[in-house]
Amino acid sequence: MKIGRVIDSIWCTRKEDELRGLKLLRVKLLNREKESENGEIIVATDLIGAGIGELVLLTNGSAARRSEGLENAPVDCIIIGIIDEKNEDEGDIHE
Amino acid sequence: MKIGRVIDSIWCTRKEDELRGLKLLRVKLLNREKESENGEIIVATDLIGAGIGELVLLTNGSAARRSEGLENAPVDCIIIGIIDEKNEDEGDIHE
Amino acid sequence: MKIGRVIDSIWCTRKEDELRGLKLLRVKLLNREKESENGEIIVATDLIGAGIGELVLLTNGSAARRSEGLENAPVDCIIIGIIDEKNEDEGDIHE
Amino acid sequence: MKIGRVIDSIWCTRKEDELRGLKLLRVKLLNREKESENGEIIVATDLIGAGIGELVLLTNGSAARRSEGLENAPVDCIIIGIIDEKNEDEGDIHE
Amino acid sequence: MKIGRVIDSIWCTRKEDELRGLKLLRVKLLNREKESENGEIIVATDLIGAGIGELVLLTNGSAARRSEGLENAPVDCIIIGIIDEKNEDEGDIHE
Repeated sequence: MKIGRVIDSIWCTRKEDELRGLKLLRVKLLNREKESENGEIIVATDLIGAGIGELVLLTNGSAARRSEGLENAPVDCIIIGIIDEKNEDEGDIHE
Repeated sequence: MKIGRVIDSIWCTRKEDELRGLKLLRVKLLNREKESENGEIIVATDLIGAGIGELVLLTNGSAARRSEGLENAPVDCIIIGIIDEKNEDEGDIHE
Repeated sequence: MKIGRVIDSIWCTRKEDELRGLKLLRVKLLNREKESENGEIIVATDLIGAGIGELVLLTNGSAARRSEGLENAPVDCIIIGIIDEKNEDEGDIHE
Repeated sequence: MKIGRVIDSIWCTRKEDELRGLKLLRVKLLNREKESENGEIIVATDLIGAGIGELVLLTNGSAARRSEGLENAPVDCIIIGIIDEKNEDEGDIHE
Repeated sequence: MKIGRVIDSIWCTRKEDELRGLKLLRVKLLNREKESENGEIIVATDLIGAGIGELVLLTNGSAARRSEGLENAPVDCIIIGIIDEKNEDEGDIHE
C-alpha cells in the first residue's frame, strides 16, 4: 500500500457507466523520505469519506476491487484508510 | 487511476485479432506537479470518444478489461472518463 | 519480491472493514546498490511478527492475498519473511 | 500499453517447459518525449512476427496471457501490434 | 519480462509456510542501456537451477505463479530461463 495526501476532487461528465456515483480524488503520494522529491499524483476512488488535506492509505491493482460496490468498477486505486497523524510534539509522519 | 492528455492516435496494420476495431490513443501522463518533469507516454484504448488534446482519466491492469467488449482484449490501459477542466479564471488542473 | 527495512507502524481509526485487525507497517525499500539513492517508502501488512528495524521480504499484487485470512483484504503488499542478516564480519546484505 | 522498438532476440537453452517454442525479443521502450532519456529494455513474447528494428505495441501483466497458446505461459509482456510508422515527410512518431 | 544477473541467495528462518523449500535469489536488473545507471535489486524464486553470476530471464506478477508447485506460493517474481550469453568475440548482451 502507499501513503498519500488528498489534494482535491475531479469531475468527469463523460465517463464509463460503472464509474457513475464514485467519488474521485487527486492524491499526492508521500513515498519518499525527502518531501522535495516530487511525489507522483494519482487518482483514487474513496468510499470512506476522506477529505481534502487528509493523510490516506491507498491500495492498488485488483485489491482495489475487493470492496463492496466496486467489484465491477474499472478502478485500479482506492483509499482504504485515513491515517491517524501524530501530535505535533511527537513529530508527524510527513512534513 | 492516472490523469493524461491525448496526443494522437496510432495505427497497427498487423495486430492481434482481438485488437481489431479498437481505437488506440497515445497519451502523455500528467502525474507530476512540475510540468517540466517529462510525463511518460503510454497507449490507451478508448470507448468513450476522447479527442486529441482532451484531459482523460486512465485505468491500468485487469481493471482495463472490465468494460463491455474488452473482456478478451489484450489491453492493459483504457480511458474511463473525460475530466472536466476548470475555467481559466478558476485555474486549470494542469498548466 | 523486494527487500525492505521496517520503519514503524501506522494506525487508521477510520478504515475499510476488511482492514480491521491487520497490522500495517511502514517499510523502506532497499532495492538500490547505493544506500544514498533514496528508497521508496511503502506500507505492508504483516502476519509473521516483523519488528521495527528488521530486514523483511515483501511480495506485491495479487500474491499478497494468498495468505490465510487475507483472501478478501484490500491489501497489495505483505511481509512474507524476515531475512537472516549476516554477521558483521561476513558483511551485511545492506549498510 | 507501451510503444517500443525491437532490438534483437534472446535464447534460453535452460528454461521453463511452458516457454518452449516462444520467440523472445529484447525491446527498448519509447515512453519518453526526449529520446535522450534512456528507455528501459524489456523482453516480450511475439506471436505476430515482429522483426528487428520495428516499432511495436506492447501489453503487460495478465493481459499478456489473453492470446491463444499463451494461457498457461509464464509471460508478463507480449507484442500485440506492429505500429504503422508515418512517412518521413510527415514526421515519425519517434526519432 | 526482464533480464537480470544473479547476485546471491537470501535466507529467511521466519517466513510464510508456503515459502518453505523455495530458493530465493537476489537479482540485479539489467534494464538500462548504460550499465552505470544503477539497476534495481529484486528477489526472485528459482525452479530451474540458476547459479550466482548467471544472466536470467524474469517474469513478474500473476505470471510468476503459473509454474507447477507455485500456484499457492506468495511469490511475485520467478526466474523462467537462463539466457545464453554470446561469445566474447560476438559481443555480450550486457557488459
